[in-house]
Amino acid sequence: MGKGERTRVAVLERATEISSRLGLSGLTIGALAGSTGLSKSGVYAHFLSKEELQLATLRYAREAFVDQVLRPALSAPRGGPRLRAFFERWLERARTAVPACCVYLAARVEFGGQPGPVRDQLAQDYRDLLDSIGQMVRAAVAEGHFRPEVDPARVAQDLDGIVMGFFFAYRLLGDPELERRARESFASMMAAARRG
Amino acid sequence: MGKGERTRVAVLERATEISSRLGLSGLTIGALAGSTGLSKSGVYAHFLSKEELQLATLRYAREAFVDQVLRPALSAPRGGPRLRAFFERWLERARTAVPACCVYLAARVEFGGQPGPVRDQLAQDYRDLLDSIGQMVRAAVAEGHFRPEVDPARVAQDLDGIVMGFFFAYRLLGDPELERRARESFASMMAAARRG
Repeated sequence: MGKGERTRVAVLERATEISSRLGLSGLTIGALAGSTGLSKSGVYAHFLSKEELQLATLRYAREAFVDQVLRPALSAPRGGPRLRAFFERWLERARTAVPACCVYLAARVEFGGQPGPVRDQLAQDYRDLLDSIGQMVRAAVAEGHFRPEVDPARVAQDLDGIVMGFFFAYRLLGDPELERRARESFASMMAAARRG
Repeated sequence: MGKGERTRVAVLERATEISSRLGLSGLTIGALAGSTGLSKSGVYAHFLSKEELQLATLRYAREAFVDQVLRPALSAPRGGPRLRAFFERWLERARTAVPACCVYLAARVEFGGQPGPVRDQLAQDYRDLLDSIGQMVRAAVAEGHFRPEVDPARVAQDLDGIVMGFFFAYRLLGDPELERRARESFASMMAAARRG
């Protein structure tokens, strides 16, 4: 990484931390300059507007998700094993990468009702996530791991619900049983998809 | 309702709308005074501090949830039918009472990492929600609608995940298939709980 790239990453790390507490609307170039020790024009050199900064912060979280969840899962055998690897890594990320998850969830709340580039990006990312899971399910059907009648879109939606329910409850209640139950729900879902 | 109570409700409606966009941290007494036409001291007469206002806004959303989801479900026969009535009303609320749902979800993100009375209240409300569902499941077991081995806490967590997953995806993608799939997931969950 060159110096410019290192600065950009440092700024995006701070941006993630700030917007996990204050939302992407609370992420101003001024606040970011103050907390990174850069001048406002130094931040502007990397991000041309507040909206560009918001989109870059989402992109940074998305890339980490791809690096830590999606890409490693792709090295598991396709079908059922890959879906399981994906779920395990996603659950791990929901437990450990709290600020990045908060940025995404807070943005979905904040921008869900505000048409524009940020909302469009959030919708596209959501579709991409559900499609990635759907593809793994279709591969599991093709491999004979799942019954042919299994609806890939429903498995994707269920899996998203299991992880999101875990994320919110665990963050507030901190009960390790929540993680065990999320795994049980995943196992039931897999069993229902296999059942002949 | 007397005049004081009507003013209080009008202020809480505005507070819900503001914090659904800006989070409970963005809900200042000044912003609320500006948008309701009351003086700051008029708002202070109802809510003694910003924290008190945040707690009252959460309480207002919680009371609406009890009125529109929990209480009507209690008039369905106990056990399976009550759980179904609860789910149907909750799903309806996730589709229609968007600002109040946003207030709660945004607050869970914002305050999940900030110890204090707001976080305590959010955790208590989450426990109460999961406990209410757990009780309906225990009643379904007692009535013979569900197998005795069914884990009430897991059903509660699954149901929460189904509705939350639906809420976030529907708000961004607006696809009516999401609602159909949420109902199918609920039906599968019920079938798994009945299966002998």
